Amino acid sequence: MPKKVDHEARRQEISEALWRIAGSRGLDGTSLRDVAAEAGISLGRLQHYFRTRDEMLLFALQHINRLAGERIRERIEGLAKDPTPYEVLRACLSGMLPLDDKSRIGLLVSAAYYARAVHDEELRAEARNGIPRLRAFFAEQLRLAAERGELPPERATEDEAMLLISLTEGLATYVLLEVHSPETALRLLDQYLANLFGAGQAGPAGVERTVAAGAE
Amino acid sequence: MPKKVDHEARRQEISEALWRIAGSRGLDGTSLRDVAAEAGISLGRLQHYFRTRDEMLLFALQHINRLAGERIRERIEGLAKDPTPYEVLRACLSGMLPLDDKSRIGLLVSAAYYARAVHDEELRAEARNGIPRLRAFFAEQLRLAAERGELPPERATEDEAMLLISLTEGLATYVLLEVHSPETALRLLDQYLANLFGAGQAGPAGVERTVAAGAE
Repeated sequence: MPKKVDHEARRQEISEALWRIAGSRGLDGTSLRDVAAEAGISLGRLQHYFRTRDEMLLFALQHINRLAGERIRERIEGLAKDPTPYEVLRACLSGMLPLDDKSRIGLLVSAAYYARAVHDEELRAEARNGIPRLRAFFAEQLRLAAERGELPPERATEDEAMLLISLTEGLATYVLLEVHSPETALRLLDQYLANLFGAGQAGPAGVERTVAAGAE
Repeated sequence: MPKKVDHEARRQEISEALWRIAGSRGLDGTSLRDVAAEAGISLGRLQHYFRTRDEMLLFALQHINRLAGERIRERIEGLAKDPTPYEVLRACLSGMLPLDDKSRIGLLVSAAYYARAVHDEELRAEARNGIPRLRAFFAEQLRLAAERGELPPERATEDEAMLLISLTEGLATYVLLEVHSPETALRLLDQYLANLFGAGQAGPAGVERTVAAGAE
């Protein structure tokens, strides 16, 4: 079905033009015409792929969320063989911080959507779409760590997983607002993980630890 | 100087009209004309108080941040006499969650600004304006708690204060996106505080604790 594949590829290209606008100046007042210009196509051609602004915004958000999910999977696959739960968690959580251009642009796009999503049920549903799966995955990693004696068993819960996600979201927000640098956000995340894993964190030699373990 | 006071009061009234728009549908595409209509005045009269949209946006953000600061002070003053550092921290942090209409509208307005602030240095400076003071105040409360033996001394740091602020910011964001309810956000905050204060939290009888202390 080359025609269908082509249609999807064109929609993705238009989404990427939208992200460039979202990343450089936000989505405030962005029209279909602006996006067509950024994508280097006519308005009529853009409307062949997206009939309305809302349809385009939703597709572009779904597409960036898919890519964010893929980036997390890649980060896990990029770890050394048989990574510890601590290493998996740290790779995923630090991947949610704006530490490189790709994740920074992703967060800028999310910021542009966030202000719309609080008033739009469809966008809000998509914005929160991946969270329950992420929470369950992190909770599973915490349970594995507890089994390995690296974590107090009472901290291996879905609530602790949600604290990790919420903290990282807040740290990332404050990088975009320049309250702190990306490096400080990572240092604070590492401190939180050190507090959580504490002296029980018994990873193999060579595990990157940027701060001394907390003394809980 | 009644004239100057009056001018300030009119600017505050216009800000409140802007917040109503920000809270109900966001600031995307909002013009001076829209705000004048919401405030029940003519565009010409509004322009007597704000020459540009940017000037109005910045003033309204400064005004809502002032009110947020006052609300936190009121929450502290509303505590029983000689509150513990734990009580002070919990009152401030829970005041940053959208648990009532006033704090919810404040967060919706912040959300509307956030997407703009990431691309606007002046708004960004104002958005982060209160954070260093809040971080220093929280760090001081953590130090007091450590002195009282309610907290491990190594947790009484500016970084731990920033973790508290970042976590609460993330919890609030996920309430607006309906990832979790306001009540769940408060429960998660309480769990974090219980982890932090742990068994060392030795508040006076009658301290409200909505979750059992963690077992760190």
